[in-house]
Parts: sequence; C-alpha cells; structure tokens
Amino acid sequence: MDRTPDWIAVDWGTSNVRAWAMTAGGEALAEATSDKGMGKLSPPDYEPALLDLIGGWMDGPIRVVACGMVGARQGWVEAPYASVPGHPLPVGLTLAPTTTPGLSFGIIPGLAQSDPADVMRGEETKVAGFLARNPGWDGVLLLPGTHPKWISVSAGEVVAFRTSLTGEAFAALSGHTVLRHSVATDAWDDDAFLAGVAEGLARPEALMNRLFALRAESLLSGLTPAKARARLSGLLIGTDLAGARGWWLGARVALLGAGDLMTPWRAALTSQGVAPEEADATEATLAGLTEAWRRSQ
Amino acid sequence: MDRTPDWIAVDWGTSNVRAWAMTAGGEALAEATSDKGMGKLSPPDYEPALLDLIGGWMDGPIRVVACGMVGARQGWVEAPYASVPGHPLPVGLTLAPTTTPGLSFGIIPGLAQSDPADVMRGEETKVAGFLARNPGWDGVLLLPGTHPKWISVSAGEVVAFRTSLTGEAFAALSGHTVLRHSVATDAWDDDAFLAGVAEGLARPEALMNRLFALRAESLLSGLTPAKARARLSGLLIGTDLAGARGWWLGARVALLGAGDLMTPWRAALTSQGVAPEEADATEATLAGLTEAWRRSQ
Repeated sequence: MDRTPDWIAVDWGTSNVRAWAMTAGGEALAEATSDKGMGKLSPPDYEPALLDLIGGWMDGPIRVVACGMVGARQGWVEAPYASVPGHPLPVGLTLAPTTTPGLSFGIIPGLAQSDPADVMRGEETKVAGFLARNPGWDGVLLLPGTHPKWISVSAGEVVAFRTSLTGEAFAALSGHTVLRHSVATDAWDDDAFLAGVAEGLARPEALMNRLFALRAESLLSGLTPAKARARLSGLLIGTDLAGARGWWLGARVALLGAGDLMTPWRAALTSQGVAPEEADATEATLAGLTEAWRRSQ
Repeated sequence: MDRTPDWIAVDWGTSNVRAWAMTAGGEALAEATSDKGMGKLSPPDYEPALLDLIGGWMDGPIRVVACGMVGARQGWVEAPYASVPGHPLPVGLTLAPTTTPGLSFGIIPGLAQSDPADVMRGEETKVAGFLARNPGWDGVLLLPGTHPKWISVSAGEVVAFRTSLTGEAFAALSGHTVLRHSVATDAWDDDAFLAGVAEGLARPEALMNRLFALRAESLLSGLTPAKARARLSGLLIGTDLAGARGWWLGARVALLGAGDLMTPWRAALTSQGVAPEEADATEATLAGLTEAWRRSQ
C-alpha cells in the first residue's frame, strides 16, 4: 500500500470480519480478513482483533466505520436498531469504547420492523450502497444467504422487509436429521432443484411430508444424493417463494449477493418468469460503508 | 419370574431395544431394556446384545419375534418391505443368523408404499396390535414421534400412509439454528402452541418467515423461550396438519402413542374439532408381536 488510508471500512459478521483501507473517494487500497467473528469474541476481544487486522495501516488518528453483528447486543457494543419504514442509514454511528489513541470505531445501527417483527444487521448497509450506486431504484432486493431477506425499497427508503430461515433450515435438516444419509454429497442436480421449487411453491402445506419422502425415495427408488440434496434445497426455496409471492410477483427484483449463493435463487426466480437484476454484495457493502462515512463526517 | 416364557417379544429400534418374556396367551412375564439400538450395532453385535437381555430367561429352545429397525438394511439382517395396500403382517418373518443352539430370531418386515414413496418399520406391528384389540376398526391412526405417521386403515388392511419429518425437524431447528437462542428451555406455553398450530394450518406457505420471526420477536418484543418453543412446535405440527387435512378432516382418528408424545397432537387435533380416540403404543406393540408369533407358529 503506497499511501495512508483516509478511513477504514469494516464488515464484522458472526463468523468472519473483513476490513478495507479506504480513500476519501471510496476506493479500497487494501483488504484484510480474519475468522474472529462476533460469535467467537467477548467485548474486550474486539479491539485487539481489530488491531491485528488494521494496525499496519494506521499512521495517526483514523476513523473506522463498521456494519454487522459487531453492533448486536452480544457484540462489541449494542448499536440500537433504527425503525422501518425509513432510510437505510437514518441515524448516526454508535461509538465503541476504544483505548488506542486516535482510533475511533463507529457502528452502523441495524433496522427493526415491528409488525411483522423482523430485524437486520449489515444488510441495511448493502441496501444503502446499492441505492448509492442506483439512485432512484424502486423495487424488491433479495439478499440470499443463511437468512434470506426480501427488502422492499421505494423513494430511497426501506418500506418493509421479510427474513426467512431458509438457508439455515437447509443446513439443519441436511446435517442433523435422517436426511443426512440421503443428501451426503456436494453434487447438485438442476432438474431436481427446479422440481423441488415447483413442488414447494404449489404445495407448501406438504412440506413436512415431502421432506420425509426424500428419505423414502432414497431407500425405495434409488434417489441419488445429488438429486435429494438439490430437491431439498428446492423445496425450502419454493416454500419461501410461496410465502413471499407478493414480494416478487410482478415486481422489479434485484439479487444482491455473491456468486454461489445467488445461483439457486436466480434459477428459482427465472423458473417463475422473473428475470432478476444482479449486484455484487461486497461492492454494495463498501459503497454503503462509504456512504455512512460521508454522512458522519 | 416363576416360569419359563413360551416365546420372547422384541422391539428393536434405532436408539433402544426392549424385550419381553411372553406367555402363549400374550402376557408379559418380565421386561428388559438396553440402549443397544440399531444405530450403535454392526451385524455381529446383535446376538451378544440380545443374549445380554434375554439370556437369563432361556431354558431350552426359544423363539424370538422382533420388529423395528433391526430389520433395516443397516440392521442385523434385512427384512424386505411388504407392500401397501395390504395386511400389516402380510408375510412371514425373516430369520436372522444365530449361533446359540435353540435360539430362533424372526423379524417382522416393514411396509413400503410406492407412490408417494413412504416406508415404515415397527409401526406395522403397532397397527396389527391395535387391530387385534379393535377388530373391525376403520379410520386413521396417527402415530406421533420423530417421524409422525398418518395411517389409513380399512377392513383390517393398511390402505395408505403418510410420514412426515415434523418431530425431527423440531429437534434440528431448535437445536441447530439461531432459534436455539430463543427456545432454550424445557418450559411450554399452551396458548403459544395453539397459536402456532393455527398459523401453520392457515398459512403453511409462511413457514420459513414465521420461523425467523421467532428469533426477531425474542429480540424485539421479549418473546419468552417457553412461548417461542411451543410456537415453533405448533407451527410445524400445524403445517403437518395442513398437508394431512384429507387424513383427519371428518375422519375417525385414533392417536397411538405414549404420554408426552401424544400431548401436542391431542391438543392440536382437539383445537380443530377432532376428538381422537387413544391407545397405548407399548400395548399395541406387544399385541402386534403376539399376533405375528401366532401367525408364524
């Protein structure tokens, strides 16, 4: 790195932390990552973990702007939720207690929705970054992942959002039930996935039975692990799509994520006649952190 | 035990094995249990595990009649499935290879349904026992548990059945997702359970979102662990009831199970205007094993 950064951007999640040395223009000069996610840390652990990542970039006072689970109740310091409907970055940063001279660490608050109850931490920054890059964009953002989020955006504000357990349910059901014997593979079958999506969409009420049927078909009719795994994913995503029908049917939809996580959702939406726009989650995070840094100058 | 048994009944499941010293009249003289279930054994382990339980009862040649996962492909010896529709005990026993002089070990085959694909091992014996005690009974049996089964019975035969992953999905979701932080209790809330049942029945397509909402409500509005745990169970059972509506609506239903496992299903069915009959699973198992022993004389 040839020059000292103007500020530092941090995305601190449950499992990992990523930091970028940034220019005032929003360019990343360098990047560092570690596995010291919120899930492994107590409050006194955060500052040392941060310095391990960014200590080499510091040359005098520096401001850090962070998003994600670092601001959860069980994180470094709680950054209370802001409410929706509203701007994705409606209020200032919550400062964490630091001891390093010249180091300021500000956390972007998450968003909460009261009815139906829902929360996000980190995704609000992606939304802000997406909107900074796509001014005036109205529609529904879909952020795939462990807890996929449908986020309705209009006039620069988050109108409402809807989180589901779909990704984590897939992991729990495929790893911790009798289905583990039937889906033990990394392989994948596109047709079986789409069949699962269609079934989940058409008959969400059959889910509990269709899950067991994966086991029965692998015992009785030689359903392969690749087909069983893909159909399991399809059943869960199809059920999610059934419940979220009002969010995507006839709507302008953009997928905001990273490569592999987007693939099944892109295929599922395409099978239903939706042609989603796409945007990169990391770019959106950096643009959102930059927006928060500018607003808090 | 004052007398030598005429035969021995065994229910050998995935986690446990139960054995009873039986009279020709179907009375149990003694009982023994161990945790040497199918999941912990290789084929050569079965005979020693059996002798640990029943060796003290043997005084000359003896026949054992067994049901359950001992007859699975990964059990002692595979007892191939019989087909439905048909009698719950349509064919003879499959003999396991024994080395103890005078010891005969016969396994009751499970039942398989081809479309939709489904399987049972052990439940067919309960059905046979229930029918032996309730001759001419027509209706739907519901066997609660890890994999609840709806079994349609008419004219002494199993017409069709439907297995769901409901019980095991509850364990996986409550133990291996973010919900574990929200449902960590043994307590229970009846009203929250019934609210979950109603929601699962009315909107099964919302399941993926309603699961995450348990977490959001525990963060935002202080949903207690007892309410969250009971509502999670209710959502899954309600979804199962939605898919199985054709099995219980307007039907004669009997719950065939054991105390604690029956409670939520009884409450859920009662909330929908169904007043299920009830029968004890162990008694049904013993009656079914007795029926199989008589038929194989």
